[in-house]
Amino acid sequence: MQDKEEESALSAGIIIIGNEILSGRTREGNLSYIALGLARAGLRLAEARIIPDLEERIAEAVNELRAAFNYVFTTGGIGPTHDDVTARAVASAFGLPLERNREAVALLERHYAPDVINEARRSMADMPKGAVLIENPVSLSPGFRIGNVFVMAGVPKIMEAMFDGILPGLAGGAAILSRTVSAYLAEGDVAAGLGGVQDRHKDVEIGSYPFFQRGRLGTSIVLRGADPARLDAAAGEVRDLMRNLGADPADTDLAAD
Amino acid sequence: MQDKEEESALSAGIIIIGNEILSGRTREGNLSYIALGLARAGLRLAEARIIPDLEERIAEAVNELRAAFNYVFTTGGIGPTHDDVTARAVASAFGLPLERNREAVALLERHYAPDVINEARRSMADMPKGAVLIENPVSLSPGFRIGNVFVMAGVPKIMEAMFDGILPGLAGGAAILSRTVSAYLAEGDVAAGLGGVQDRHKDVEIGSYPFFQRGRLGTSIVLRGADPARLDAAAGEVRDLMRNLGADPADTDLAAD
Repeated sequence: MQDKEEESALSAGIIIIGNEILSGRTREGNLSYIALGLARAGLRLAEARIIPDLEERIAEAVNELRAAFNYVFTTGGIGPTHDDVTARAVASAFGLPLERNREAVALLERHYAPDVINEARRSMADMPKGAVLIENPVSLSPGFRIGNVFVMAGVPKIMEAMFDGILPGLAGGAAILSRTVSAYLAEGDVAAGLGGVQDRHKDVEIGSYPFFQRGRLGTSIVLRGADPARLDAAAGEVRDLMRNLGADPADTDLAAD
Repeated sequence: MQDKEEESALSAGIIIIGNEILSGRTREGNLSYIALGLARAGLRLAEARIIPDLEERIAEAVNELRAAFNYVFTTGGIGPTHDDVTARAVASAFGLPLERNREAVALLERHYAPDVINEARRSMADMPKGAVLIENPVSLSPGFRIGNVFVMAGVPKIMEAMFDGILPGLAGGAAILSRTVSAYLAEGDVAAGLGGVQDRHKDVEIGSYPFFQRGRLGTSIVLRGADPARLDAAAGEVRDLMRNLGADPADTDLAAD
């Protein structure tokens, strides 16, 4: 599994910018949407970081992740208020000047009446020099791409619309597929046999997740990989293992959430 | 705000270990619980990282975060299956041998009948040399502390019980308090005045969050800090600002979740 993970062609990282998540006020709500989209596109999500609305911390994370992974997605901090510092931080990470993007200003001016648009709203058009706008069919918060970094909104509905527009344009690979097999067996009982299945199927990532349902302990095994035949073979071995332990495996995920 | 953040006395980082979260299968469910507990204890949550079940990646994150912050909490990867590699990774991060903890073995042997306990289950007692057990009233997965790193379970109920036991023993500070003021005003309209409030109250962290409720756009302002009088003063200025803009501010959070 470790080998496979490190080998997969293209990788992505996510930077979630938001004091409101680190304070516990808001439950993080964008990660699983992005993760599922990346898997469909055959991209491996290698890391997600949640960091505060601090320019230096954002720039540092952007530089670490854009060097380590093929794509980086940020969420949050692109509104008009003082705590929206993402664009400035990304410009600083790239060593680029921040400048007012003409296309973004034109969009804002088309939307807001002359007496409503003000300097705070215009400042949402400030981006690193050379940034390309990300289409946003829901609102006007202008997201942008610079290099391999995609800067998106934090509000889930807006982020999702932006991400849906970005995804088809990414170079990816074969979709990452999954199979799930569950049984009322404790993890400690399947562990030895499951380790054997993993050893025989190094190109399949096998995860084990305990659950407690209808008063009984059980385990869901999730198998992930790009090749459906190899996934099915490994899933078949997991089912055999569970049957040999006296259980009746089902192809459902009883441990999710 | 930036100054304040960097100044606060004691900081913490979280490492969430789990392929199931990076794949989008499972929604992250531990962060806000830990975050709220840390705030009560006067600890600043400075970063959370979500990384895969890979020994090297875990060791790397543990070493980065334990050097950067006062406390580090990990969740996940302490069960009996092949994908549970957290203890080995933490031992490797500290350059310590992994050894079978006697106290943890004794607990496992008291719980499991001799024909049920097996090598996979006993391996849950493997920890870095010198690790101290974390009490776990819910299940037997043994968590542990080594240095400033607390290794906890990933299953929320078990993690919460472990964390509740750890929290009173941490050196913290004054609880981080918050005030929230909301109004049906767009962020772009409060932005300039709000920036002024932030400038005059550098010891208060002020965040602005848009919402859409009953068909209307609005903004919730969240103020955080340790000193209730200074929080109240800043919140009062936010209310005045909103009233001057023609709105009727309420002390509720309309933008959370």
